[in-house]
Amino acid sequence: MRIALDAAGGDFGAEPNILGAAQAASTFGCEVILVGDEKVLNAKIAALNLTGAKGLSVFHAPEIIDMDADPAKECRSKKGASVVVAAQLVKEGKADAFISAGNSGATMVAALMKMGRIEGVLRPAIAAPLPHINGGFTLLLDAGANTECKPQHLMQFAVMGSIYVSKTYGVKKPKIGLLSIGEEEGKGNVLVKETYPHLKNLGINFVGNIEGRDIPAGTADVAVTDGFTGNIALKLAEGLAKSLFTMIKREVMKNPLAMLGMWFAKPALKNITKVTDPDMAGGAPLLGIDGVALVSHGKSGQTAIFNAVKTAKKLVESGFVLEIKERIAEHKEIFEKLEAQK
Amino acid sequence: MRIALDAAGGDFGAEPNILGAAQAASTFGCEVILVGDEKVLNAKIAALNLTGAKGLSVFHAPEIIDMDADPAKECRSKKGASVVVAAQLVKEGKADAFISAGNSGATMVAALMKMGRIEGVLRPAIAAPLPHINGGFTLLLDAGANTECKPQHLMQFAVMGSIYVSKTYGVKKPKIGLLSIGEEEGKGNVLVKETYPHLKNLGINFVGNIEGRDIPAGTADVAVTDGFTGNIALKLAEGLAKSLFTMIKREVMKNPLAMLGMWFAKPALKNITKVTDPDMAGGAPLLGIDGVALVSHGKSGQTAIFNAVKTAKKLVESGFVLEIKERIAEHKEIFEKLEAQK
Repeated sequence: MRIALDAAGGDFGAEPNILGAAQAASTFGCEVILVGDEKVLNAKIAALNLTGAKGLSVFHAPEIIDMDADPAKECRSKKGASVVVAAQLVKEGKADAFISAGNSGATMVAALMKMGRIEGVLRPAIAAPLPHINGGFTLLLDAGANTECKPQHLMQFAVMGSIYVSKTYGVKKPKIGLLSIGEEEGKGNVLVKETYPHLKNLGINFVGNIEGRDIPAGTADVAVTDGFTGNIALKLAEGLAKSLFTMIKREVMKNPLAMLGMWFAKPALKNITKVTDPDMAGGAPLLGIDGVALVSHGKSGQTAIFNAVKTAKKLVESGFVLEIKERIAEHKEIFEKLEAQK
Repeated sequence: MRIALDAAGGDFGAEPNILGAAQAASTFGCEVILVGDEKVLNAKIAALNLTGAKGLSVFHAPEIIDMDADPAKECRSKKGASVVVAAQLVKEGKADAFISAGNSGATMVAALMKMGRIEGVLRPAIAAPLPHINGGFTLLLDAGANTECKPQHLMQFAVMGSIYVSKTYGVKKPKIGLLSIGEEEGKGNVLVKETYPHLKNLGINFVGNIEGRDIPAGTADVAVTDGFTGNIALKLAEGLAKSLFTMIKREVMKNPLAMLGMWFAKPALKNITKVTDPDMAGGAPLLGIDGVALVSHGKSGQTAIFNAVKTAKKLVESGFVLEIKERIAEHKEIFEKLEAQK
């Protein structure tokens, strides 16, 4: 098993990528190919005393994607960008999957350019696992790849999300919810209203509309939505969790007794940050890409990268892409019919 | 100053409405008219030892809006519903504002039916104040009244939100953000892309696109969005805050030392729940209604009702409706031109 890792991706440079890769390689006995400037990477690997570490290799990619630039333009003009080269390695069969903690838009574009879509998939989606109160994840998709969606896109997100959750988390018959305002059929915007009846006929465990509060409550295993709503929900959830912990810290620091108290409460609170920590989620897969591609968040540390490699390995072994292909093909006629309507 | 309160509204029946009304009446020297079944209300008032309490009166309304029914149908068929009668009192000049902790859809319909829209306003919106990390509120609108919006609607939300925040919180030149995915102009869905350039020409302090994380961060004073996205964001934020506190409690209860520690930390944590408590927000105004109408959340206790009355009083005194009328009229031509485009 060989996983290509965009070693230039993420806000903290190569170090967490190298450390996470080394840990995953030694833990899982897989090969992690660090993709980036080889001089920079080799020097960093040496500095970390990891030269010759088992399962670690370097593949040269001289360019870097500018985080603020247009992902499509950047990927097209920079053939030597680390994320593009990582996707290229999968295309050429030199890697079984790739991971990037860089620009998620660029990761999607690179994956589309090099690996392409699964046959029949109209729009690949970013699927973000959001921790819920019962210790698991609600898979939110699309989390930002497609700002304008049609019912057939949401239908495919539902099918792909269902397969992903069942393959990765071992959930049998994952509960699929349609993110809306109000639970009853007929509540929501035009897109939701049009999508709802179709979700009953896809052989998935569709549980109806869910609301914003159902994401942290874990009411459904998968929350299906368009990429605009999904991205706002994702960033709101991440931001709010962070804000609350910052507020707790700030208030506690004002009061010595509270500081002492918090010291005793720390182990208990650690359990929560463990659950809510995005590093534990194992990355967000690009569903609908013909192969395994994962986005890790920009602030990925060693643990986030380690968990992303773990997820990538699991996904490659699961045959999950093949299953999406089959299930999308099963309902091919419905999708094509909807696509043909203007 | 007379405030009509839908005393049947909310999940806990009349009691918190009566207690909050009595507290507000005695604190602010205003009159609160409790609207609902007079037998039930008078019995409850007597049971709470508040018979003859200064500023408290009862106005009979025999019917109740069914929470699960269609708000428009319910309001039309039940002329004697408490929320409809409360709005009617404002229409007849017998009250200066009304408040309901019941079904927000029904509150909007009742307000529209009885009080109507401010001249020139295309779509009234529900404006939800969400607490942010710096101790203030980010006003999110529309929080659920309009699932499908056009640029001219979002433009009016921006103008109304700006006036509301400046009048209620005393913020000079409130920062108005457009909720999107990505900060740069040109990022977002079609609606956001079309709306962005127009927001520069409305005499408001438009700070550009903001992302989901900016709501809890307090980057802007007002977050403008369509009612579908806004309602999902609102319910996600409420649900997530609640989930996190539940998780903290659950983990702490598992560990006696942590319980002891939390006891010491409690006063500090109280400060946070004070800030994040929806009861402190003072209700969500219906902006664009020709008068003052406030929605309080379904779980409103005495404090929530007290704060809603406080906000209603402030709004009546502020002349805020008149200012919306003037500012909407100023840009009348832009709105009409956009409305004329199919």
